[in-house]
Amino acid sequence: MSELIPPGTVWLVGAGPGDPDLLTRKAEKLIAAADVVFYDALVGPGVLDLIPAGTQRISVGKRAGRHSKDQASINDLLLAAAQAGKRVVRLKGGDPAIFGRTTEEVDHLFAQGVPVKICPGITAASAAVASAGASLTLRGNARAVTFMTAHVRAGEKLDLDWAALADARSTLAIYMGKAAARDVAINLIKAGLGADTPALVVENASLQNERLVQTRLDLLAVATAAAVTDGPAILVIGDAVRGRKQPAAPGDSTVHKNAWKKIAAASAHE
Amino acid sequence: MSELIPPGTVWLVGAGPGDPDLLTRKAEKLIAAADVVFYDALVGPGVLDLIPAGTQRISVGKRAGRHSKDQASINDLLLAAAQAGKRVVRLKGGDPAIFGRTTEEVDHLFAQGVPVKICPGITAASAAVASAGASLTLRGNARAVTFMTAHVRAGEKLDLDWAALADARSTLAIYMGKAAARDVAINLIKAGLGADTPALVVENASLQNERLVQTRLDLLAVATAAAVTDGPAILVIGDAVRGRKQPAAPGDSTVHKNAWKKIAAASAHE
Repeated sequence: MSELIPPGTVWLVGAGPGDPDLLTRKAEKLIAAADVVFYDALVGPGVLDLIPAGTQRISVGKRAGRHSKDQASINDLLLAAAQAGKRVVRLKGGDPAIFGRTTEEVDHLFAQGVPVKICPGITAASAAVASAGASLTLRGNARAVTFMTAHVRAGEKLDLDWAALADARSTLAIYMGKAAARDVAINLIKAGLGADTPALVVENASLQNERLVQTRLDLLAVATAAAVTDGPAILVIGDAVRGRKQPAAPGDSTVHKNAWKKIAAASAHE
Repeated sequence: MSELIPPGTVWLVGAGPGDPDLLTRKAEKLIAAADVVFYDALVGPGVLDLIPAGTQRISVGKRAGRHSKDQASINDLLLAAAQAGKRVVRLKGGDPAIFGRTTEEVDHLFAQGVPVKICPGITAASAAVASAGASLTLRGNARAVTFMTAHVRAGEKLDLDWAALADARSTLAIYMGKAAARDVAINLIKAGLGADTPALVVENASLQNERLVQTRLDLLAVATAAAVTDGPAILVIGDAVRGRKQPAAPGDSTVHKNAWKKIAAASAHE
């Protein structure tokens, strides 16, 4: 285990969307090998339960509109721990590569000679559509997916290229989009995206208290306001999230067993 | 375990980019609970090693230009196994939500009354930038990231909205882009993206034989042709993948230990 995190080095580790089972096996091993674990407000409680009792844990919670340490303080804490020779894990909600401010931490640590490695995580958009039985892309119809934030500070305006975003052949996954749902919908419709474009709102993706609403673009603001409480929410817009109904449990399957036996036998010899 | 996959149901499971440690804990449990596992050509060999000896495994490998089963045959195989009452896992390289043709399989199974669930996976772009110590977004500079494919059939032309894609404030992650690297670079530069925009080429992301090249947009085609052999490659373009150098191993850390002790003690009381 000691090989995994040499003393004085930092691993930025994706904690995934919240469900501890959606953590990677690697993240689990890194958490077990750390001397100290720094974690975000968005890291699921079930994930934190995986931190061994003897390991130091430090909250550096950042969340829109709530108590938070600023990024510079977090950078300095990571640096201090590494320079003291600790095996450091920095747990980030979701995937460090997606809206994780990873580069700020890497640059700060690199500038002071501290080696940093990154372990990817499951991002919220993937977990959200998985819960809905949907995808982010659709062969033919949705050849691309864009992940964006719609979080602006008080008084700021959403300044985005709506014409480029209103692409019916692409899916849009919007992080931190709760407050901006109305503006997003209006701007996309104005820019030409169909008012009936399927949309999905997921709060607390993958957690026990997950809430999932299938809706459409012109109802996005209403659905978001009605369904989302105070958890992190993700909005997904596009044909790829058209609602699909899970069928009832399958019935008697004995009639199919012989057919399957033949197929399975044939496949085994390929 | 039997609760995890009721007989006659299908789990579409993300196998991640290849490294078995980048599998989720949930995927690992599902693999252990399956009667039969169907897998892609892109599922890492280390992941396949996790399939228990007594579990039936069936390759449905699809890969550009190689032997493959067509999608309709795969749909039918999954259906036959489910209808025979098997606990079915369908392992997909990467994340089922990203270019995984998940919707085709879900629709086919739902139409026949077979329940389907989805377990997300780490997608190649996340693993690729993690290996490079980089991110897919950058606060301020890269507020969005677009995942797209640049795979076209022989004779087809890449028909994309290059003006929308050539956005200096957004990152572009291109799957199956090896053959199209030259066209992608030329079109993006023509549409106004800087020729010196940072680019990253990663073949076999997360695997032992991973190859990683830091380059720039105007050198993308040359770098791809020179570096990529026959493994799956991902191209990432944008400021977020500007090259960063891992520092040498940290030196003596004793001078920092007292500073860290104070910080750690203060953090513990917050």
